[in-house]
Amino acid sequence: MVVKVYGAGYGSAKRVIACLIEKEIEFETIPIDLLKGEHKHPHFLQLQPFGVVPVIQDGDYTLFESRAIIRYYAEKYKAQGTDLLGKTIEERGVVEQWLEVEAHNFHPPVYNLVLHTLFSSKLGFPADQKVIEESEEKLGKVLDIYEERLSKCKYLGGDFFSIADLSHLPFTQYLVGDLGKEQMVRSRKNVSKWWDDISNRPSWKKALDVCNP
Amino acid sequence: MVVKVYGAGYGSAKRVIACLIEKEIEFETIPIDLLKGEHKHPHFLQLQPFGVVPVIQDGDYTLFESRAIIRYYAEKYKAQGTDLLGKTIEERGVVEQWLEVEAHNFHPPVYNLVLHTLFSSKLGFPADQKVIEESEEKLGKVLDIYEERLSKCKYLGGDFFSIADLSHLPFTQYLVGDLGKEQMVRSRKNVSKWWDDISNRPSWKKALDVCNP
Repeated sequence: MVVKVYGAGYGSAKRVIACLIEKEIEFETIPIDLLKGEHKHPHFLQLQPFGVVPVIQDGDYTLFESRAIIRYYAEKYKAQGTDLLGKTIEERGVVEQWLEVEAHNFHPPVYNLVLHTLFSSKLGFPADQKVIEESEEKLGKVLDIYEERLSKCKYLGGDFFSIADLSHLPFTQYLVGDLGKEQMVRSRKNVSKWWDDISNRPSWKKALDVCNP
Repeated sequence: MVVKVYGAGYGSAKRVIACLIEKEIEFETIPIDLLKGEHKHPHFLQLQPFGVVPVIQDGDYTLFESRAIIRYYAEKYKAQGTDLLGKTIEERGVVEQWLEVEAHNFHPPVYNLVLHTLFSSKLGFPADQKVIEESEEKLGKVLDIYEERLSKCKYLGGDFFSIADLSHLPFTQYLVGDLGKEQMVRSRKNVSKWWDDISNRPSWKKALDVCNP
């Protein structure tokens, strides 16, 4: 069964695409144009009542929330492709811890930077300079903690690549790319090495090709 | 091994306490006084570099982020106490989806209501009336979607109680209690029935006794 991924061009959906590629799962992408409001159409709201992307359909199984989707495929196909959860329940616990850190500490400030720097004019609201400055400061503090963590192990969840690292790919890509803030990564030796490692995985290069053809 | 829970009096830590009780795991609570800044002491930052509660210590295993901790115990002791994850990987996927909804859609507005209504004066900043109004409006929309979901199944993750429901307990308790917004729950028939069900579980009553003696 080919997995259908709705909204594949957007940041959070790239998490799902990178995971499906790591797990060697066949998929097709179905575009959803947020600027045209397609995510608020009744048909889409039947799949995702909050009206956000991504959503997957896998036969008659539908799932939304990108981090729930990557957990599902990492567990369902544990023995296929890259193992993204760790070998033991304790290792998975630490992976889950850093996936939560990504969601609650890393993502909000970098999302605000993306929103106010790259999308505010497209979405028709003024960029808030105060939000931009505060977000950059918060993100810097988070990256300082990552720098310390990555001095002790190669990846966030331990000495193996996991969904905790994978989940950082889309928005760190914005940070070093369109946001022009590569220095925030490069000024931290261990974060810089980690970024080179995870962003050079063939899965991420392929995900970018699929999502930004 | 008795699990040590740091910061048990606070909202997110109650998630962990409720889970440990459901799983019949022995624990002890270690108070951390946020108003005295104990969460920023070097000793605590060694356990939790972001300086927030809760943290658990289980022998030499340390874990933070409340939703990572409840996933860990739900999985490690799957066959002990209440099963909180569902029987199949597909059921767990749906549980994870609604746990993510709790974290990203439900929690932020209710947390803002708690912060600006109950804690702003203690923490020494003025309550922002605009944030309060916007948060209540956002929360209302989320609860409308819950009302629809709970018309189709007894609990958020399906017809079984799970970590997705459990994770809502501490901040819904604030909502119907100290925030004085019980009407937001009671005006929605299915949400109201769900709240009566989950808040009357012996585990939650015991968690409140442990945390607010």
